[in-house]
Amino acid sequence: MFSFDIHARCSQTSARVATLQTPHGAVQTPVFMPVGTRAAMRAMTPDQVVATGSQIMLSNTYHLALQPGADIVARLGGLHSFMNMPLPILTDSGGFQVFSLPKTITEEGVTFKWKKSGAPFTMTPESSIATQEKLGADIIMAFDECVAYPCERQYAEASVARTTRWETRCLEAKTRDDQALFGIVQGSVWEDLRRRSAEELVPLDFPGYAIGGLSVGEGLEIMDEVLGYTTPHLPKEKPRYLMGVGLPEDLWCGVGHGVDMFDCVIPTRHARGAVLYTFHGKMRVSNNRYRKDRLPPDTTCPCYTCSNFSRAYLNHLFTCDEVTGTTLAAIHNITFLQELMAVIRQSIEDDRFEEAKRAFFSKYGSSFPKDHKHRRPEDDPA
Amino acid sequence: MFSFDIHARCSQTSARVATLQTPHGAVQTPVFMPVGTRAAMRAMTPDQVVATGSQIMLSNTYHLALQPGADIVARLGGLHSFMNMPLPILTDSGGFQVFSLPKTITEEGVTFKWKKSGAPFTMTPESSIATQEKLGADIIMAFDECVAYPCERQYAEASVARTTRWETRCLEAKTRDDQALFGIVQGSVWEDLRRRSAEELVPLDFPGYAIGGLSVGEGLEIMDEVLGYTTPHLPKEKPRYLMGVGLPEDLWCGVGHGVDMFDCVIPTRHARGAVLYTFHGKMRVSNNRYRKDRLPPDTTCPCYTCSNFSRAYLNHLFTCDEVTGTTLAAIHNITFLQELMAVIRQSIEDDRFEEAKRAFFSKYGSSFPKDHKHRRPEDDPA
Repeated sequence: MFSFDIHARCSQTSARVATLQTPHGAVQTPVFMPVGTRAAMRAMTPDQVVATGSQIMLSNTYHLALQPGADIVARLGGLHSFMNMPLPILTDSGGFQVFSLPKTITEEGVTFKWKKSGAPFTMTPESSIATQEKLGADIIMAFDECVAYPCERQYAEASVARTTRWETRCLEAKTRDDQALFGIVQGSVWEDLRRRSAEELVPLDFPGYAIGGLSVGEGLEIMDEVLGYTTPHLPKEKPRYLMGVGLPEDLWCGVGHGVDMFDCVIPTRHARGAVLYTFHGKMRVSNNRYRKDRLPPDTTCPCYTCSNFSRAYLNHLFTCDEVTGTTLAAIHNITFLQELMAVIRQSIEDDRFEEAKRAFFSKYGSSFPKDHKHRRPEDDPA
Repeated sequence: MFSFDIHARCSQTSARVATLQTPHGAVQTPVFMPVGTRAAMRAMTPDQVVATGSQIMLSNTYHLALQPGADIVARLGGLHSFMNMPLPILTDSGGFQVFSLPKTITEEGVTFKWKKSGAPFTMTPESSIATQEKLGADIIMAFDECVAYPCERQYAEASVARTTRWETRCLEAKTRDDQALFGIVQGSVWEDLRRRSAEELVPLDFPGYAIGGLSVGEGLEIMDEVLGYTTPHLPKEKPRYLMGVGLPEDLWCGVGHGVDMFDCVIPTRHARGAVLYTFHGKMRVSNNRYRKDRLPPDTTCPCYTCSNFSRAYLNHLFTCDEVTGTTLAAIHNITFLQELMAVIRQSIEDDRFEEAKRAFFSKYGSSFPKDHKHRRPEDDPA
């Protein structure tokens, strides 16, 4: 039901192109997964999500466990049926909320203090897996602790050990064989801790490995460094997933380090703020300079928004707070990232990844370091 | 470019079925027109609007004149092009805002005191027509005064006279021949004033006539009465449009009085409040009783929402304030009204309008008076 077949590799970096098979269809990697936290992409219908060219989406276990509750989703036939989503789905484990929400951590699990109303909410490796089995995504994630950045080394070290114990419990708790359970490597920004985490988790033989604990404020330079010394310790033949990461700079960086999967809420969150991503850089379409602009957001973009609407119309919608503006911006931003991933995949197949990266940033005009070099390919002796 | 061909009449009421030809296509009447005040249907894209089976939509001149301004819409090719709307469009004149917003009225026109920022905003018959010509809708409306309910008779009488003068000025101001300018009959709830308004306006030979000043708090019973003594004074061979009216009760009532066109913001406004209209009555899908309900909102509805989603999913979306809920509810509510209009049209063609009305309300369960009888058909001597 699951497989991961690599069919092209970059000769200068660790980038590769592969097909990830899931019960709901095949996914071409490297892939960007848009996030519908509460079983809905903000201001979009599922058919609009599919039309962006997205191949797989992500939803959040913590939020769904609280509302509507996993039992209701299960009763309605699981997430795919509940939200009418034909694409493969990945659910996170709640581990990221251990970072982002107030909580108390014990060996047993995590008690979250934040909850709209009622009693505190406890999540354990076992309950996370049970919840994710009820939700029924194609790929589910081990329950880990995503530590803050910066973080005391002593704390990170203890956390890595506990995360290994938790992930072991996740494997033991798992009962469904139509879901792939991915492990998550932690270790903050210490090379030996990242290696230790990987070395402890790889023998557990997860079908895929995520790199957690990044995109928590450390910045691209440090992320680049961490990826450089983490990915080589993950199995080459299995998918690698960089969690919570998805800006264009991060995607090129991650792919070069051999990452296959990405997710990020920023493109849809920024859509609400009228920020559009294009191959010529970001634009805030609510800016007065676009008030009379006849052009679409991106003249080369094939999305519904760029095919049918001007910057002036989008400017108008955002100026008068019409939520249709958010819908059109989200459609564009997600399509843009899918187009970008297609460019990246093609560049790897053509073995001109670094060249394509430079060409992209010469137009996109970001602060991505011009002299950035990925480490040597993983196939070389490290 | 414009024509109105009646091809079926009810033998017991004034209901009729007709085809209204416009530059952007034919419209089968009686028709419900959804409202996209600011050149956007709330939380919907134009293709979603088209998919509801809507044949024509409405947009508001007052709001568009303020933002983005008619010149910008004209520069972008007019409303159809600006908002990418293939359907015919009707713009109101700003006359309703004379009722709904703080203002000062003179013979020249109306100065609105409400405006987000800057100087007061004046609208005259001439400026309303100039603005509507720039917006470029298929059907434009004369600038009138929609008086409040209740209203002093003396005021209503003076207002009717002024509205006739204003509408005459509208006709004189009109320059484009690819737009149909409809007149609007006023007169509040006085039979002689309504007749006088109609008798003054009919000789001006507008290609269609609206009944204004209703749905302003007078209630269905009074509206029924006003329609009963107003529509017989309007030309039988021209389209009649009941402004601001569109609840199921109102639609059946209006059609029976020979009204051909309706518009209303309620179905989309209620969608935001999780209120769904169905052939079995209204439901507030955010109610806890729908939390686990596997059924679609309406099992017989062909819309995208009912074809793909459960009440439980909609309940979830509204519970966690996901705007996708508004989108799905609006798609359903507008589709429901288009389905209802199709039922009404078919019943007139089959000459069983009153029977169909009773059958509808026996399921819909509204407070529509059971013994309600429309006046005799307009073709009979009144």
